[in-house]
Amino acid sequence: MPPLPLKQAEEVGEYDLFVIGGGSGGLGAARRASGQYGAKVGLAEASYRLGGTCVNVGCVPKKVMWYTSEVASALRKAASYGFGDDATNYKIAESFDWHKLKEKRDAYIHRLNGIYDRNLANDKVDYHEGFASFIDKNTLNIKQHDGTSYQVKAKKIVVAVGGQPTVPTDEEIPGASLGINSDGFFDIEQQPKRVAVVGAGYIAVELAGIFNGLGSETHLLIRYDSVLRTFDPILSDTLVPWAEKEGLNIHKQTNVKKVEKTASGSLLVHLDSSDKPLEVDVLVWAIGRNSNIAGVGLDKVGVEVDKKGDIIVDKYQNTNVDGIYAIGDVQGKALLTPVAIAAGRRLSNRLFGGPQYKDEYLSYENIPSVVFSHPTIGSVGLSEPEARKKYGDDKIKIYKTAFRAMQGAMLDEAHKAPTAYKLVTLLPNEQVIGLHIIGEGSDEILQGFAVAVKMGATKKDFDDTVAIHPTSAEELVTMR
Amino acid sequence: MPPLPLKQAEEVGEYDLFVIGGGSGGLGAARRASGQYGAKVGLAEASYRLGGTCVNVGCVPKKVMWYTSEVASALRKAASYGFGDDATNYKIAESFDWHKLKEKRDAYIHRLNGIYDRNLANDKVDYHEGFASFIDKNTLNIKQHDGTSYQVKAKKIVVAVGGQPTVPTDEEIPGASLGINSDGFFDIEQQPKRVAVVGAGYIAVELAGIFNGLGSETHLLIRYDSVLRTFDPILSDTLVPWAEKEGLNIHKQTNVKKVEKTASGSLLVHLDSSDKPLEVDVLVWAIGRNSNIAGVGLDKVGVEVDKKGDIIVDKYQNTNVDGIYAIGDVQGKALLTPVAIAAGRRLSNRLFGGPQYKDEYLSYENIPSVVFSHPTIGSVGLSEPEARKKYGDDKIKIYKTAFRAMQGAMLDEAHKAPTAYKLVTLLPNEQVIGLHIIGEGSDEILQGFAVAVKMGATKKDFDDTVAIHPTSAEELVTMR
Repeated sequence: MPPLPLKQAEEVGEYDLFVIGGGSGGLGAARRASGQYGAKVGLAEASYRLGGTCVNVGCVPKKVMWYTSEVASALRKAASYGFGDDATNYKIAESFDWHKLKEKRDAYIHRLNGIYDRNLANDKVDYHEGFASFIDKNTLNIKQHDGTSYQVKAKKIVVAVGGQPTVPTDEEIPGASLGINSDGFFDIEQQPKRVAVVGAGYIAVELAGIFNGLGSETHLLIRYDSVLRTFDPILSDTLVPWAEKEGLNIHKQTNVKKVEKTASGSLLVHLDSSDKPLEVDVLVWAIGRNSNIAGVGLDKVGVEVDKKGDIIVDKYQNTNVDGIYAIGDVQGKALLTPVAIAAGRRLSNRLFGGPQYKDEYLSYENIPSVVFSHPTIGSVGLSEPEARKKYGDDKIKIYKTAFRAMQGAMLDEAHKAPTAYKLVTLLPNEQVIGLHIIGEGSDEILQGFAVAVKMGATKKDFDDTVAIHPTSAEELVTMR
Repeated sequence: MPPLPLKQAEEVGEYDLFVIGGGSGGLGAARRASGQYGAKVGLAEASYRLGGTCVNVGCVPKKVMWYTSEVASALRKAASYGFGDDATNYKIAESFDWHKLKEKRDAYIHRLNGIYDRNLANDKVDYHEGFASFIDKNTLNIKQHDGTSYQVKAKKIVVAVGGQPTVPTDEEIPGASLGINSDGFFDIEQQPKRVAVVGAGYIAVELAGIFNGLGSETHLLIRYDSVLRTFDPILSDTLVPWAEKEGLNIHKQTNVKKVEKTASGSLLVHLDSSDKPLEVDVLVWAIGRNSNIAGVGLDKVGVEVDKKGDIIVDKYQNTNVDGIYAIGDVQGKALLTPVAIAAGRRLSNRLFGGPQYKDEYLSYENIPSVVFSHPTIGSVGLSEPEARKKYGDDKIKIYKTAFRAMQGAMLDEAHKAPTAYKLVTLLPNEQVIGLHIIGEGSDEILQGFAVAVKMGATKKDFDDTVAIHPTSAEELVTMR
């Protein structure tokens, strides 16, 4: 699709709504306001491609890589299920052509970008390719890729510029810039033989899992003793020993002191937990994310940010400045695509949907999330420690189970991936206020339970539902 | 474990409860009554092995075969994901060693039988290996495998003898007995090159899918134009064209007229839809199931059965004879393992659990069920036709979506399995009274949604739940 003709402020007049950022949240807000309610909407995106982090350097290509790693796993299981022999099948798994897959993945993402372009056009949103920054609270400067600029006017402005991976500076850790971040992960053209991933959050866990599953020698460097520390402990307690058994090298209580490049191009990663540096081909920083506000000119209009740089909003996504809103990763809460989309859509409902939506907002409670680890993880509601802290030990009853899914029935014991489920319930009526699951299929299992938990399901509601046999999910309604 | 010593009526005295049949329902009732409430319980099983249909010739070995077929599918996808080449991978898929897998599967089932033995002993249920039949309403004859018999007395008796596949007689269809049934499927030692499966229900669909997935030339013979006709039409409408594309030969409007054996040992299956007979190595009848009451002596105590031979029970599982109950497949409703287990446990709660359970029964509404087809199917609540008939067209609002799951992202269009979801909602508040899904992961996706549907979830409850991206299940909470 050719780029839309440029729209100068003089030509288009004033927008009802202008959205800065063409990621999940911005597209959700813009399309809902224009497509559904007929508002006059513009949207600026500076990166040449719509879709934001999720489509380009996040959930979508990540899931393709996760699934690729699952295919490798299936190859390694095949002989146990009667197909060929381990020697041949493992060799095929090891023959993985990263470059070929990367090219196909890029083409797939490119097709998605095109779909996003068309959706935006179908919903009659004016698409501005350029970097938008505030001049005043109703005026934005759009700097185009050729260096020229123009202005647009808008009654209301949504800041949806997203976030970016946090990386240490070379001052903080000498040689840190020799590493890449999760954006760079998707630029890797050839499979690294040896890789170190720094971080204990879900992104670090996912990337390390992919590398390990695809046969790279993989080191995960974590500051403390466990991963996913904001999740219920049953998840890391189950995942960590299994991942180690599957060959992932987890270095606990470990910080990177220094990174050096060798003459051969490899990296020496010096650790505070070992005298011997790790030699790897790729170092990935996955230590967190921060908001992407540089250059947006929030200071010019007085939009408040917290000390981490996240825009401060109330539950309606209002910033402190009337007519300026923030959604998605830039506001620092629940950095998830569906949250950004839902917040964006609900904001546009509220702003343009008429009286029945005047109090519309997205609740940030009971947001389900999954981790594409091996096996996958799902979580909604409070962790056990959170629940005990909030309500007291005597108000909390825990249900737990652990088993090997039937998909591993024909595998040797050593190769059967673990499954572990936990329900956190609140007495006296045993309302399910937390549900934490790890095991094959957890990514897909969670959604329906998230509906039930959001509805206030009790343990009895679970018990009253007939199980579906043989599945993993049935264990969630038969726990005692 | 050695068999328990025989217990003669004189030795053991009178049982509080005696259960005829050691399948899912019988074990559920017996273990709950004895293990939980301390009732004196006996159980008879005639087949030499505990677990009934599910463990021995049903859901468990079926799922192992389904998963095996999924492994074959993964092999055929592997080159598209960067592993090896199609020629090699397909060859490995075709090299499937049915016999080896069958031996492993049998050993797995045998281990499960042992676990069931131990669970029964742990719950202090007396296990009688033999065929139980009524002498009077408190006395049973137990015929042992050596031909000798003894009697037991019981205050209450549960009939849980299950069902068996229905097969036509040779009078009905000449040569019918040259075919096998679904029990016989699990005895097959070598993969048949050519196979015909007769039937359109879920068992026929599953068996045909397994054969086809594992590379047998597979013919599915159905009487009408579609399969799974008791399910919502979106499921068969999605499955049938895909299965045909995947190589399954579906013969519609087809009945078997006659079966003959050739000199080479193959079977000629004569059809009313074609002049040319089908030549196959194995013919499987999967046309339904009927109750297993022959020889149980229900007539001696006057227990009523319907004209199909299913025992008639009320919602408390009471037969017409005081103190005699029936659960599981023998009562002909909802032939599903978890239903039998739940009905058995609830019956024992009611009989032995004290006053708080005096009205305990299993509701047969909103029972979720899945079909292990390729891709899998899940269904709970009313189909669209059922809902329209029950409530009228103006009371029903349908939500539908169809897409290709992201797991197929790297496959050619032709190889991307379909996904289709339907919500049947009841106006005015859009209560979700039917949920019907087909696509990868549907088997695991359904359980949580079944909880929500059982709780009376509305479309708004679905909408208010944040989606989980990227999954298939999220499409169920974002439908418009």
